[in-house]
Formats: sequence, C-alpha cells, structure tokens
Amino acid sequence: MPGKKHIRDTLSRWEKGGGKTIARTRVFDVRATRYTHPVRKTARDFYTINTYDWVNVVALTPGRRLVLVRQFRFGIDDFSIEIPGGVINPGETDPIAAGLRELREETGYEGRDARLLGSIRPNPAIMNNRCHIVLVEQCRKTGTPEWDADEEIEILISPVDKVYEWALTGKITHALVLDALLLFAPHWKKNSSA
Amino acid sequence: MPGKKHIRDTLSRWEKGGGKTIARTRVFDVRATRYTHPVRKTARDFYTINTYDWVNVVALTPGRRLVLVRQFRFGIDDFSIEIPGGVINPGETDPIAAGLRELREETGYEGRDARLLGSIRPNPAIMNNRCHIVLVEQCRKTGTPEWDADEEIEILISPVDKVYEWALTGKITHALVLDALLLFAPHWKKNSSA
Repeated sequence: MPGKKHIRDTLSRWEKGGGKTIARTRVFDVRATRYTHPVRKTARDFYTINTYDWVNVVALTPGRRLVLVRQFRFGIDDFSIEIPGGVINPGETDPIAAGLRELREETGYEGRDARLLGSIRPNPAIMNNRCHIVLVEQCRKTGTPEWDADEEIEILISPVDKVYEWALTGKITHALVLDALLLFAPHWKKNSSA
Repeated sequence: MPGKKHIRDTLSRWEKGGGKTIARTRVFDVRATRYTHPVRKTARDFYTINTYDWVNVVALTPGRRLVLVRQFRFGIDDFSIEIPGGVINPGETDPIAAGLRELREETGYEGRDARLLGSIRPNPAIMNNRCHIVLVEQCRKTGTPEWDADEEIEILISPVDKVYEWALTGKITHALVLDALLLFAPHWKKNSSA
C-alpha cells in the first residue's frame, strides 16, 4: 500500500470527532471527545478541561522589584505566592490589556511599556487553554485593589534576585509563575548587566 | 473584640468542609468542596481537579544533550515537544524511581546520578497535585520503549542550548517542561562553566 510505511513511521494526528460536556463549573468545563487514530482506527474518548485563556504579569517597580501576591488557594488547600494574573474575560481580545487590568484589580498597581514575553500551554495533555505572560515596567501603586467577593490578597514587593531564589528553593511553587520567571530571565539579565 | 483586627489584617485560611466528586475520568476527578471563610462566615463550593502526582525528567546524555519526546496531545489537539514524564502510579512512593521508570518506558533510555531538582504545583488554584522534576545524567538507550496502547512518541536528542532557545521562542510551550528548564538552569550553568 503506497505511503503506508511513511505514515506508520511518523506520528499520527488523531482525528477529532464529536464530544460532550460532562461537568461544568464556574472556571472550567470537562469535555469528553471522541478521537480516532488514523492508522490503527481505534476510537476512544479523551477527557479535557476546557477553560478561558489566562494571563500572568511580571510587574517590575522603578526600584527593580517585583509585585507579588499571596493568597489562599483551594486546589492545594493552602497559601501560595504568585505574580498577579487571572482569567482573560470573554470578549477581551488583547492579553496585554487583560494583564494590565488584572494587575490593577489585584494590586492597585499600574505601569508602562507593557509587552508580551510569551504564551504557554498550562497542560497540553488535558487543558485546551493558553497562559500569556506579560511584562510591565515602572509599576507604581496608583489606586486601591478591586477584589472579587471571595478574593483576599497580600501584596509583597520583593527584589528580583530574591524571587528567583524563592523559585529555586521551593518557596514559590506555582508552575505558571515559574514559567514567567523563565521567560523573564533573559530580559532581567540584559538589564542587570546594562 | 480582642484579636479581631489582627485577624482581619492577615490572610484567612478558609475552613474546608465536606465535598463530593462531580466527575470522574481516567486521569482526574473533579471535586466540589464546601469552604467557609473564618471571618466573613461566607460558605461556598469551590471546584478542583484531583489527580495523582506527576514526574518529569531532565535526561542528559553523555554528549550533554537532552532526551525529548514529541507526541499528539488531546488537550491542545496538536503535537507537543516535551521532556519524558508521566503519572506516578498509586503505591509508587519514590518520585525518582517513578521518573526513571517513565524515562525507560517512553524512550528506552536509562541513566544514573538521578536526583530531585524540585517539586512544583501545576495549578494551586484548581489542582491538588504536585509535579516532581528529576535530573538523570549519563542517559543512554538501553532498551525498547514500552508505550501504552494509545501512546506514540517521537524521540528527539537535542543540545541543551537549543532546548532553551526553543523554550524562549515558543517551540516548547508545555508549562511543566518550562518549569523543569528553570530548575535545571543553575545545574547546567555550573556544569557548563566547570
């Protein structure tokens, strides 16, 4: 069969079929989707967590410190030190604007020279969304945080080197925050040595 | 009321109540858990994804390259370049042993001097589990991969600097893989300059 060997030697793209939502929550849906392997012809349901894109913000102050937030997190049933961020609202098309909004709402800080450091996948195996990472410079407190009903946030302003130390020693454990620190590292090194 | 001001000024630890599983899949459960705020006394259900701990492996060859895997991922409905890894089985207590097993099963590679680089939280807000990151050195192909029924994996052996370049330019997007590269960076720098 011409071409068959070629197909078997490379990775196959599974064919996506129909699906159904098996659970809905305020922040994510769980979907079961039928996929068929194009060569083996096996069909199987795969389960994914479908949700909005997220944005996380590396917010640098004029004193070259980072704006961090500490809050209680229900997934781990404990407190977590993170960078500001959250869900990009439906209809909000620009991740940079969403990042600036989240920074302002969570911390009361605003800044300038906002730009995208990168866009990552929180979990390609089971989640359909992206997390955008935005750098904002010259951040200063310009207002009062506007928290959601269940939010309660402690704001920490910490030297960048200290934040990297916390990342490497397990004081900061949030995967998406560590990702932001990886993508920010070349910018920080460039500025530090300038 | 003595102590009340102090309580209101600090973050409150929400009190965990009962819960129920609202969806079960092969790889995760969705739980609704009742939490009560200790000061405001508001009670609300929060939804979390409960699953096993995971392990990801930074596998370095004698030629100072990394063992990578490329596979189709159902969450993003696309291919993804990652480091080897997977779910720590129930009863498997040592993340390092689990990492060596996943490395062997996915790639056929084995190595030595395996050690834990760190343990992170894939998503403190909505996931209860940890991901352990294991470094293994002197990795060589010693056998044949043993894939699960639905697995199909392409193995790439890439120079470490190239892998960091892929991380910073969006060719590698998996959040937990990028985390491993952050935690591996000090070890790589130390060895590169030695």
